Amino acid sequence: MKLICAQNEFNTHLSIVSRVIPSRPSHPVLANVLLVADVEKQQVRLTGFDLSLGIQTSFSAQIEAEGTLTLPAKLLGDIVSRLPDGEITLETSSEDTLVSLTSVSGKYQVRGMGAEEFPELPTVDDGQVAHLPVDALIEGLRGALFSTSADETKQVLTGVHISAEAEGLEFAATDGHRLAVVQTIDPESDAEPIEELKFNVTVPGKALRELERMLMLNATSGAIAVRFDPGQLVFEWANQRLTSRLLEGQYPNYRQLIPRQFSRQLTVDRRSFSGALERIAVIADQRNSIVKLSLDSVKQELVLSVDAQDVGNGREAIAAQISGEDLDIAFNVKYLVEGLKALNTQDVQMQFNTSTSPSILTPLGGMKMTYLVMPVQIRS
Amino acid sequence: MKLICAQNEFNTHLSIVSRVIPSRPSHPVLANVLLVADVEKQQVRLTGFDLSLGIQTSFSAQIEAEGTLTLPAKLLGDIVSRLPDGEITLETSSEDTLVSLTSVSGKYQVRGMGAEEFPELPTVDDGQVAHLPVDALIEGLRGALFSTSADETKQVLTGVHISAEAEGLEFAATDGHRLAVVQTIDPESDAEPIEELKFNVTVPGKALRELERMLMLNATSGAIAVRFDPGQLVFEWANQRLTSRLLEGQYPNYRQLIPRQFSRQLTVDRRSFSGALERIAVIADQRNSIVKLSLDSVKQELVLSVDAQDVGNGREAIAAQISGEDLDIAFNVKYLVEGLKALNTQDVQMQFNTSTSPSILTPLGGMKMTYLVMPVQIRS
Repeated sequence: MKLICAQNEFNTHLSIVSRVIPSRPSHPVLANVLLVADVEKQQVRLTGFDLSLGIQTSFSAQIEAEGTLTLPAKLLGDIVSRLPDGEITLETSSEDTLVSLTSVSGKYQVRGMGAEEFPELPTVDDGQVAHLPVDALIEGLRGALFSTSADETKQVLTGVHISAEAEGLEFAATDGHRLAVVQTIDPESDAEPIEELKFNVTVPGKALRELERMLMLNATSGAIAVRFDPGQLVFEWANQRLTSRLLEGQYPNYRQLIPRQFSRQLTVDRRSFSGALERIAVIADQRNSIVKLSLDSVKQELVLSVDAQDVGNGREAIAAQISGEDLDIAFNVKYLVEGLKALNTQDVQMQFNTSTSPSILTPLGGMKMTYLVMPVQIRS
Repeated sequence: MKLICAQNEFNTHLSIVSRVIPSRPSHPVLANVLLVADVEKQQVRLTGFDLSLGIQTSFSAQIEAEGTLTLPAKLLGDIVSRLPDGEITLETSSEDTLVSLTSVSGKYQVRGMGAEEFPELPTVDDGQVAHLPVDALIEGLRGALFSTSADETKQVLTGVHISAEAEGLEFAATDGHRLAVVQTIDPESDAEPIEELKFNVTVPGKALRELERMLMLNATSGAIAVRFDPGQLVFEWANQRLTSRLLEGQYPNYRQLIPRQFSRQLTVDRRSFSGALERIAVIADQRNSIVKLSLDSVKQELVLSVDAQDVGNGREAIAAQISGEDLDIAFNVKYLVEGLKALNTQDVQMQFNTSTSPSILTPLGGMKMTYLVMPVQIRS
């Protein structure tokens, strides 16, 4: 193998695949990046794979002799990132796994491993294909990903449920205490028609976080091909590919959790609400992280309060448009703070029934998102 | 106590003293900041103290009723930093340690503790006083602090030795493998005459790192008063004070370690040398962190190389002015990288005798600094 490439290209693409390469792999070769020099395409293809999540990315290079091998990802990345801007020549001798990197500054040799031990990235050949608009995908991930469960024993709850129905494309995530649902393509609009294909998959949050990062980095526009069969899913666009296993098991029927009617409603400036919650959280986190919201319809005020007995207490009041009877209701402050970050509009609406039934937060005038939060009981 | 102050002032000064406040204090009150409202000076004075290192800082405020108390530093800082810009009113009720903070956004109450349990910050009343120019102090700390030992059992080596002699002001630090010496005031120059006072003290590195940070933050100019007695030292300037215990024990007679003559010498661009070392370090750190330097007087080249057997190897060559016979010599790459960061001039000089005797690095045309590094033995 012999190739010449630009240091900054090599570095960028190495850092993309390196994110999935485990630092303590189950098999030594998985700590390596698979490097394929394709003489026909005049491209280098890099692959990182942890057996569940795989990322593949290609970039142009001058390929003088084709070849395939694997190199220790961390070590290679640490060297390449420190090399000066300019050309790098990467070369192997015939029967050896010692690869030399030559740049203007000097020459490094790194010991690799043969590619034959590196597992094939799963492909989906006979499965279904859908094409998702990049903007819709990014919007859905931003609005839902933060609500997945971090508890690996919770199976499907660690993923985001993505469904394409006649009504459009929907992203949902819940950890059992809160639920985020984003509808990204309005079926009424003809602007971005989704294909006729209907599907329901639950994709691990970890894979989608990497997908979101890659899409943001590349500022890709257009559509992304999604291929899947019952166990596996592949996102493919431009010169990149991300593959992930799917989460098995029935995703909760979350739509039935969202109340259709509410007896109380408030509209409030999102940043004011969020700022007050973050201050209240300092005191709340000293005890049980619970904040009390009090709706005062006469003063048209939302009052936030916390009492952490021995430590201290706090109270803030924010102007709000309130309709319905007064109400005291309590939440885990973290769920509200995180939800308000995702809502992303100037004003938000919060709707309630009683102090023990679910409330929902929605953005006013932005994307179509519903964020449901379960209240916690308080002794009044 | 009742006072009104600016949120940003309160926040800035709280974060200065908070840095010394231990998160797991030996006594509960030490997790608190001591707050003194001085009605005469119309100032708030904050103190943090971990029994070894203490910081005191004052700022102007409208003091309506004087008082003294202590408040949990972390909690107070977390709240104050999140409060909106503007005035904060801090108030205690007569017989209570519950302190209320009122800002435009709302009201918080935090439980404090009486000030009577808070230990007095040590003072040095009868000791000696010196006045050190701030610039000289910063230069000395920058050039020496990084060479202190991190090993707490090494006693005096965890500190910086500061000595004022007829020849000027000198800072020295060594961890047993390398030694940094900075002479900051040239006795030949009349520009910044040091006072007649001669002294020798070893100050804990931790205290000096805080001092450096405070001096950089404030961009103080002029001189700093240093008072000390055999066990204690106080730096005092403007509205701030830092006190520290001194390290006991004889500091090594480091001057005798520095060779007076060298048989070989090289002059090299600091950034090129440093960049090459950082790349070599990636491979070196896989094994024993050793880099080999080879002086080639014919080619006028400095060659850096590393061989980490199973992992890989590397070689870089840099143009250099070399005098004396060729030499192979090896160092811990970390000591060279750290030294080159501190030297701070475009070109640096490195001087050698043999492959087993100490080498020194000096800046060319900058401050007066000598950085001595012990080589390590290599099998050739």
